[in-house]
Amino acid sequence: MGDQQVFRASTTAPVNIAVIKYWGKRDPKLNLPTNSSLSVTLAQSDLRTHTTASCSSSFSSPDSLILNGSPQDVSGARTQACFRELRQLRKQMEESDSKLPKLSQMPLRVVSENNFPTAAGLASSAAGFAALVRVIADLYQLSSTPTELSRIARQGSGSACRSLFGGYVAWEKGTEVDGSDSVAVEVAPVSHWPEMRALILVVSAEKKGVSSTSGMQATVATSTLFTERAERTVPKRMEEMKKAILDRDFDTFGKVTMRDSNSFHATCLDTDPPIFYMNDVSQAAVRMVEEINEAAGRVIAAYTFDAGPNAVIYYLAENEHAVVGLFKNVLGSKDGWAGSRGSAVKSNSEAKFNAKTAATLSEGVSRVILTAVGEGPISVDDHLIDADGNIIER
Amino acid sequence: MGDQQVFRASTTAPVNIAVIKYWGKRDPKLNLPTNSSLSVTLAQSDLRTHTTASCSSSFSSPDSLILNGSPQDVSGARTQACFRELRQLRKQMEESDSKLPKLSQMPLRVVSENNFPTAAGLASSAAGFAALVRVIADLYQLSSTPTELSRIARQGSGSACRSLFGGYVAWEKGTEVDGSDSVAVEVAPVSHWPEMRALILVVSAEKKGVSSTSGMQATVATSTLFTERAERTVPKRMEEMKKAILDRDFDTFGKVTMRDSNSFHATCLDTDPPIFYMNDVSQAAVRMVEEINEAAGRVIAAYTFDAGPNAVIYYLAENEHAVVGLFKNVLGSKDGWAGSRGSAVKSNSEAKFNAKTAATLSEGVSRVILTAVGEGPISVDDHLIDADGNIIER
Repeated sequence: MGDQQVFRASTTAPVNIAVIKYWGKRDPKLNLPTNSSLSVTLAQSDLRTHTTASCSSSFSSPDSLILNGSPQDVSGARTQACFRELRQLRKQMEESDSKLPKLSQMPLRVVSENNFPTAAGLASSAAGFAALVRVIADLYQLSSTPTELSRIARQGSGSACRSLFGGYVAWEKGTEVDGSDSVAVEVAPVSHWPEMRALILVVSAEKKGVSSTSGMQATVATSTLFTERAERTVPKRMEEMKKAILDRDFDTFGKVTMRDSNSFHATCLDTDPPIFYMNDVSQAAVRMVEEINEAAGRVIAAYTFDAGPNAVIYYLAENEHAVVGLFKNVLGSKDGWAGSRGSAVKSNSEAKFNAKTAATLSEGVSRVILTAVGEGPISVDDHLIDADGNIIER
Repeated sequence: MGDQQVFRASTTAPVNIAVIKYWGKRDPKLNLPTNSSLSVTLAQSDLRTHTTASCSSSFSSPDSLILNGSPQDVSGARTQACFRELRQLRKQMEESDSKLPKLSQMPLRVVSENNFPTAAGLASSAAGFAALVRVIADLYQLSSTPTELSRIARQGSGSACRSLFGGYVAWEKGTEVDGSDSVAVEVAPVSHWPEMRALILVVSAEKKGVSSTSGMQATVATSTLFTERAERTVPKRMEEMKKAILDRDFDTFGKVTMRDSNSFHATCLDTDPPIFYMNDVSQAAVRMVEEINEAAGRVIAAYTFDAGPNAVIYYLAENEHAVVGLFKNVLGSKDGWAGSRGSAVKSNSEAKFNAKTAATLSEGVSRVILTAVGEGPISVDDHLIDADGNIIER
């Protein structure tokens, strides 16, 4: 023990799906966005990254990271920025209290696992960097708040900053050149509006052609419509969305969610060359949600699409049968209904829908994920690295 | 004869496909647009409307119009506006010269035929209203210029005003409340740049869900990005496009054509509810054009999409093998290659292309049309109504 001691901490961190989209950086190095964004954090029982960070003077340099069993390159600027900033905070603590072990000088060994199929095309980098930053902060016993840590996680992956909170989370773009005020803040905790649910339709697709990082920079550089979105459309929607959440007003929440998703994809299409993330299956999901809302006579379901064809459909628990029941009727044979959430839903076979839309969905959706609004990162005792610093094989 | 005489005139009129898109009306009744637009008139040997107008005091009221063998409703405000304005111009002539027969007081009998499949989803209303206005002007022996007639045709169908000219045609939005300066003008005649060709990929699709008329009004009412397009993006592109045409600069012509098509569809997607005209097949056509241009190392092909999934691909005659040859390699089994233009093209089997893109195209394209820049309306002696006023059965 002593100098050879292995220090460990473990956490799980959630995925978040934005309802006001982040698209465009004003500073690519610091991941400073051109507009604020707002997301719902999703339950970790369904989608989460589990990460253990350890350090020991017995570890050989350099720092290492293993994700889903595969060693990752940590030399990239983004991961290095996270390691450097967290070490710096630890170093300050160590300098003010000489009794503290010098963890900041020890190599880091980090192991991370996702509980969802990476092939699903779900943005896992948000959960990944949120877990990485949270777990190293825990390992270093930093007193930083989630908002303070969000400034660091943002440099790993922009949207990761929002995964440091549960519930409803805003990432305020900030105005400072150094990004010090570009941080995530809680709009409302899960408990404020716990009835929010999400149905994810995973669309079978090739690997996406354009990564978000290069795609959003192309949009900023070439779209003539983008500035209008970033400077006027989104600021207005951020206020509408915050109010809708505080008022638990699903009608406004849903309308703004759908319009902002479409606005984001419109700027992608206005990029040169154009970026298409939505395909015929995505369009069918839009149509199905429109049919559900038309039948209900109000907005009870709201679609949103990230940088890929998958649909995320938000709804309230009370409307589960009308929303998810219809999708179960059409997609009941797909993977994903076996869990407790999915098996609780009765197929809604009375609802009317367009047969062509249903056929396109059925052909193109490979699996469904049923989830809900959920908590932020959770510290756990279930370590992926043993007390001797060895990776635990599972 | 005498009062029983049947007066006749016949014309053919072309289709035009915009390279700067018309989308949005500032006055729906007068069809006054929110932005100027610019189009290429296509050859009538491939796509045209053939119309005969006749009038006689022996005809019974009201006016009648038969299109492709089916009687049409002419009581709509748009057709009525065209009839009324043309009659008014004739009436002025009759009042200043009492020897002229009183054609303005006689019922009109109009017969019209398209030489292209209406099921193809090609905007036929432009050719249709251009032919209607041109042929009645001929019947009435009006001295009005094409630009003066374009003010009338515009009230029938906005884009029809551009089909009164051949070659390269601008529709200047105008600023007058009465629409008197919202007219079409020639940018350059066919002879200025006769090498322009167009390949149309007709995509098998359901009937389009949203008509242009209601679609564009929804965009004006709900898209937050639309104003930027109409007020700043398009005016700049109109100047770039006119210069490109005058300079015979295909690189700029192609780039601006593609960007403006994407900008238009972006505002459709930003509409609430979103309007999708492009589908997976359209996206594959985009990708194929991108591959062609990449292989060439410059822009030799330019796609554009109207309010539907069909692709129109402009190119210069000198690049026919590189552009059309590749499509023939992929789509050689489809209808449309038998004509003189199509059979002259050798399939380009050496060119590389993405197999998935090609499969999507092959699955979704039902026929091709090969055409070129062409002349404006042509007066013809081939009448669809005989000297006694009877419709000639064919």
